[in-house]
Amino acid sequence: MTVHTDALRDHACLIVHGPDQPGLVAAVTALVTRNNANIVSLDQYSSDPAGGQFFQRLVFHRPDLAAAFPDLEADLDQTLAPYGMQWRLTDQSVPKRMAILASTSDHCLLDLLWRHRRGELPVTIPMVISNHTNTAEDVRTFGVPFFHVPSQSGADKSASETEILKLLAGNVDFVVLARYMQILSADFIEQVGVPVINIHHSFLPAFIGAAPYRKAKERGVKLIGATSHYVTTDLDEGPIIEQDVARVTHADTAADLQRRGADVERAVLSRAVLWHAQDRVIRDGNHTIVF
Amino acid sequence: MTVHTDALRDHACLIVHGPDQPGLVAAVTALVTRNNANIVSLDQYSSDPAGGQFFQRLVFHRPDLAAAFPDLEADLDQTLAPYGMQWRLTDQSVPKRMAILASTSDHCLLDLLWRHRRGELPVTIPMVISNHTNTAEDVRTFGVPFFHVPSQSGADKSASETEILKLLAGNVDFVVLARYMQILSADFIEQVGVPVINIHHSFLPAFIGAAPYRKAKERGVKLIGATSHYVTTDLDEGPIIEQDVARVTHADTAADLQRRGADVERAVLSRAVLWHAQDRVIRDGNHTIVF
Amino acid sequence: MTVHTDALRDHACLIVHGPDQPGLVAAVTALVTRNNANIVSLDQYSSDPAGGQFFQRLVFHRPDLAAAFPDLEADLDQTLAPYGMQWRLTDQSVPKRMAILASTSDHCLLDLLWRHRRGELPVTIPMVISNHTNTAEDVRTFGVPFFHVPSQSGADKSASETEILKLLAGNVDFVVLARYMQILSADFIEQVGVPVINIHHSFLPAFIGAAPYRKAKERGVKLIGATSHYVTTDLDEGPIIEQDVARVTHADTAADLQRRGADVERAVLSRAVLWHAQDRVIRDGNHTIVF
Amino acid sequence: MTVHTDALRDHACLIVHGPDQPGLVAAVTALVTRNNANIVSLDQYSSDPAGGQFFQRLVFHRPDLAAAFPDLEADLDQTLAPYGMQWRLTDQSVPKRMAILASTSDHCLLDLLWRHRRGELPVTIPMVISNHTNTAEDVRTFGVPFFHVPSQSGADKSASETEILKLLAGNVDFVVLARYMQILSADFIEQVGVPVINIHHSFLPAFIGAAPYRKAKERGVKLIGATSHYVTTDLDEGPIIEQDVARVTHADTAADLQRRGADVERAVLSRAVLWHAQDRVIRDGNHTIVF
Repeated sequence: MTVHTDALRDHACLIVHGPDQPGLVAAVTALVTRNNANIVSLDQYSSDPAGGQFFQRLVFHRPDLAAAFPDLEADLDQTLAPYGMQWRLTDQSVPKRMAILASTSDHCLLDLLWRHRRGELPVTIPMVISNHTNTAEDVRTFGVPFFHVPSQSGADKSASETEILKLLAGNVDFVVLARYMQILSADFIEQVGVPVINIHHSFLPAFIGAAPYRKAKERGVKLIGATSHYVTTDLDEGPIIEQDVARVTHADTAADLQRRGADVERAVLSRAVLWHAQDRVIRDGNHTIVF
Repeated sequence: MTVHTDALRDHACLIVHGPDQPGLVAAVTALVTRNNANIVSLDQYSSDPAGGQFFQRLVFHRPDLAAAFPDLEADLDQTLAPYGMQWRLTDQSVPKRMAILASTSDHCLLDLLWRHRRGELPVTIPMVISNHTNTAEDVRTFGVPFFHVPSQSGADKSASETEILKLLAGNVDFVVLARYMQILSADFIEQVGVPVINIHHSFLPAFIGAAPYRKAKERGVKLIGATSHYVTTDLDEGPIIEQDVARVTHADTAADLQRRGADVERAVLSRAVLWHAQDRVIRDGNHTIVF
Repeated sequence: MTVHTDALRDHACLIVHGPDQPGLVAAVTALVTRNNANIVSLDQYSSDPAGGQFFQRLVFHRPDLAAAFPDLEADLDQTLAPYGMQWRLTDQSVPKRMAILASTSDHCLLDLLWRHRRGELPVTIPMVISNHTNTAEDVRTFGVPFFHVPSQSGADKSASETEILKLLAGNVDFVVLARYMQILSADFIEQVGVPVINIHHSFLPAFIGAAPYRKAKERGVKLIGATSHYVTTDLDEGPIIEQDVARVTHADTAADLQRRGADVERAVLSRAVLWHAQDRVIRDGNHTIVF
Repeated sequence: MTVHTDALRDHACLIVHGPDQPGLVAAVTALVTRNNANIVSLDQYSSDPAGGQFFQRLVFHRPDLAAAFPDLEADLDQTLAPYGMQWRLTDQSVPKRMAILASTSDHCLLDLLWRHRRGELPVTIPMVISNHTNTAEDVRTFGVPFFHVPSQSGADKSASETEILKLLAGNVDFVVLARYMQILSADFIEQVGVPVINIHHSFLPAFIGAAPYRKAKERGVKLIGATSHYVTTDLDEGPIIEQDVARVTHADTAADLQRRGADVERAVLSRAVLWHAQDRVIRDGNHTIVF
């Protein structure tokens, strides 16, 4: 069953990207007009108006959108094919289905569940999967199913991943790693088939790897940060969606840094998730365009 | 003599605003295309897609722009009249002429002059007018004419303002009050005929009036700020362009707050000036849209 | 039953304030040394070394603190009386008892309960009192008692306040208004007998009163903020403990501002509560010293 | 000739560090008292009250300080020797002598000269040394001597460094690298004999090396930063004094990042220089304590 967000009824989001060229915007906006739709918002970016890449996010309102969807898609195909553009049309009233993978830390997990309950995130949450059980009761209090898939090492590692893939398959539109402390294999990333968003407990590209707050303390930094990015097979190196920092001093202990860092992490992750859920993030190689 | 900014040669900026209605974006973008221009960037905002106000900033590249200008203007008139829209077309390679009014403080004044010399601000600076002489030598070192117009009170106040108006008339496209410590009369604002940008030494709407840093100290605030806004006849109440803050503590003296505040002031003012010079700011009653 | 925080076992916090004068710091630190205690941290501030007010926060470790407490107090009395100083000695291992008053909004309330469970706040929470029932289940999930005291107007208003005072009396060391949407009477503030901390949904002194986010939207501000302060009988005018802001744009609706504002509110309130619980905040008229 | 800062007449700053141990603070403050001085401010930090390192910055007022200096030093020697502490006593009214090394970029250089003229930095500036001549006139406008020492490579590199060392020798108390684009040899760092402060055009430890803004653009970061640190023989790895960041988006070009970065660089460097000049920074291995 899909949940419909009423304020977004009959709203569609169109993402277009490809080689920039004259007439593109006029072609797209004319298409919207002749399909009896009204533009609600339009953002675009060109990496270089002469020969660069073009990115556009256009939200429009079309009464009786569901019925008009096939015609819109056909028109987009026909109109944009000559330009060699990729496009994606989504019904904004259909929330994306988000799975959360977590470990023992609860700060990112609970913040997402709470924002969802509060109506801040246009998503459904069909499941939380954790390799620990400590958050099970909290998760279920929010009315969200909780699945425990213990982590295993060596040959059994792939067994855990297979079980997770089976739970996700067909049920979710994207996955959020809310401080999930396992390194997912390249196989997993390739097979999962949906975007995976991670929150990195550091200000990338700094302090990659384990114990970043201890390393930050040892290095004597005056700011700590967090980075949310799409996961690629290249660990900690996917396209960055959002980053932020907090000021610290010599008097902060490694534990203080971790506590301050947790606040930054949940804030950064919740923004990245919101923007992804609203189709505001377009991937371009190892970058993102965030509208 | 106008200075041409080479990177912006043959670039025009079109500002459109008025009642939102279907087909508007398609009409504008089609116009750009049929006039052999290529869209470089496009930002738009609608206060409400159903019956709200529509604002658009569109930058396009048109080879041989100067020759095409009259045709573009005629086409805009004809195309946008049926929609009841206001529009403004500017040649981006022609920098705006900016006058600076200052008093004894030099932090905002010198920062603008330095950014201009560095090529950060697409403006020319035909004059600095001050009611004091202490900054004359610095200003002239930057190759900018300096005029001293002493302030007077009572009946003679209008004499000072008349002299300033005479210096500005026909010579400038906008005026910046870089900590100009005189209250301009409503008459002046009405007669100057160009936008006037002020930097308010406080985080509006707080601590309006004199000695804001002393008041901030007395109130024990933990943040101080600055606000840049367009000047209207309603003192300290014009449309806000930009604001920012800095963190302070109980240990900061009123003099410390003033020093920290000066840093925020020059940063906020330079951003407001840049955005205005780039036609990024659209006024809408007592608000601004900043693209 | 008191909860003891193990890491703070045998740690005491000494607050001293009064007229600054030579020899004061030496007198206090000598006292600590002769009582076989070791200074863990020391912060001090003088509003003016010549004739100003002196404020000091000193944390020391004294093995077998509980047994030594009476001697320490007697020594402090004898040592500081000649200087005319006020002082306060607290056992850091005894958490303060914090009551939370709330209404329908849950963002500040749940953030405090979650931080407490996580071990970030050195307090106990003997009760949450609300004039609504919607958060009762969430509160009890955290193992915290929930009391419903409906608000009443006119003559019955004092009946509600009397009921709240009865619940609090003798049971709490401070009260937090976590978006409690009732104006407490001057009588209540005087009778409650413990500090009351409020979170103001605005960047004081701006937009005092109702619907601050609507007012901020109308004014077109580029930053919104929140302020946590001690409550005095002068509404919205007590000593400020902490403030912060978030950046917003013309595209944010009043609802967006409210959502962004909620994030700032809970962050600011949690810092103010933490610092109060750690005896880091000293009131000085309408200011605070925050060490 | 030394310049005396009047507000700091008869003020001394005492820095003490070494192994933490009971009675230390009492011993130091008693010393101050018996030398007829009054404590103006006192900051301290212990990395671990049980067996850690202790750091203290104490500012005191002593009438007729110059005459009392020898007695104070003798008393400090006698008092602190048993504790095995290092200490440093400076007369706050004697500004430190700061040399600036620069290349073609003027943003950090001019900001320091301007802040100095404005009275914000308690230093004298006996010289600016640059490997280019473009800033000579600006520097001399501020009344500061300018020396041109061209950079050379290979065997002649040491000739340039030798010339710089000769200019500095005996004339300065610290050196600031205000975007000086030459890598100083380990020999130079060892021979210069005074602290050297650098501004790194990036948020350490990220993007070490050349062209950091291009690398930041390629990586698609959402924040850029700058770091000021003491220079050690380990390039870009000295103790960090201050850091800050600015928010950027996909739409910012590498040139935009550079311009935004320049603003952060000059702000961060000016804070680091101010704090060093005020003896607020204590080095501890690869960290700093900043009071």
